[in-house]
Amino acid sequence: MASTRIREARERDCADILRMIRELAEYEQLSHQVKISEEALRADGFGENPFFHCLVAEVVPASGELQGPRVVGYGLYYFSYSTWKGRNIYLEDIYVMPQYRGQGIGTKIIKKVAEVALQKGCSQVRLAVLDWNKKAMDLYKSLGAQDLTEAEGWRSFRFEEEAMKEMAGC
Amino acid sequence: MASTRIREARERDCADILRMIRELAEYEQLSHQVKISEEALRADGFGENPFFHCLVAEVVPASGELQGPRVVGYGLYYFSYSTWKGRNIYLEDIYVMPQYRGQGIGTKIIKKVAEVALQKGCSQVRLAVLDWNKKAMDLYKSLGAQDLTEAEGWRSFRFEEEAMKEMAGC
Repeated sequence: MASTRIREARERDCADILRMIRELAEYEQLSHQVKISEEALRADGFGENPFFHCLVAEVVPASGELQGPRVVGYGLYYFSYSTWKGRNIYLEDIYVMPQYRGQGIGTKIIKKVAEVALQKGCSQVRLAVLDWNKKAMDLYKSLGAQDLTEAEGWRSFRFEEEAMKEMAGC
Repeated sequence: MASTRIREARERDCADILRMIRELAEYEQLSHQVKISEEALRADGFGENPFFHCLVAEVVPASGELQGPRVVGYGLYYFSYSTWKGRNIYLEDIYVMPQYRGQGIGTKIIKKVAEVALQKGCSQVRLAVLDWNKKAMDLYKSLGAQDLTEAEGWRSFRFEEEAMKEMAGC
């Protein structure tokens, strides 16, 4: 039987990662916001001072099966900082392809992220989730996460490039 | 008359930064969550690969006044990553001491952050704000920010150390 393993992404995974970034954005109904390219992922994630780190979930076929390993999920994170608690990890994306859901692959990815966080002296893992995505929220809560928007009233704000340019007087 | 300037924080500003981190947490009614120390700020923000960057607002007395410059606000940020748009800045904290509010110092800090973001090839500045802090929300919106919790339904989740340890099987 095929098995799944979680491993660090390599540069050659970027095509798969980009494919899944697009699938996730489509699922979130926000595809129009995706501007990233495979080249940007390679440059930003696999240089000397990477802007992000990535784990991939790979299905390893049973011996005798003809196809090779297949990347079916990913978790993309970076190190962030809390002025209350110090070093953190921010889990920007977590995704498992629909046909591979319900097998605990998402949980495996989150657990691996928690391991990395502890190894690196981080005291928190943060992430954001869309309010209609009950399945994801239930999973995170079942693993011990707290909904800070609900509990403390935190709201996410974003300045886009146009507002930034206006502020900077460009 | 005294004037205000925004400059990059130096290691010796850490005592002032910690004082203001505590004042901000008190204002946010979440003081009990502050565990950071001056030593951690020095180590994490002023080493070779800093986990954060910080701007401070400094009141420079008019010539003839006896006191020296005084740090009255700060903006603490780090580089984050959007899988849709690439490099970002996350503005973790922005604070101006109560007696110095209403003079545009907060706006000056945000504008400087926007400048840094553009210089570094970032396409967004993100931040979080508490839902009862209308004054802050109004300021960010007036400068062109979008409330993503309202517009798209994003909610913030957090795993704390206990949940992380449970997940990692420690």
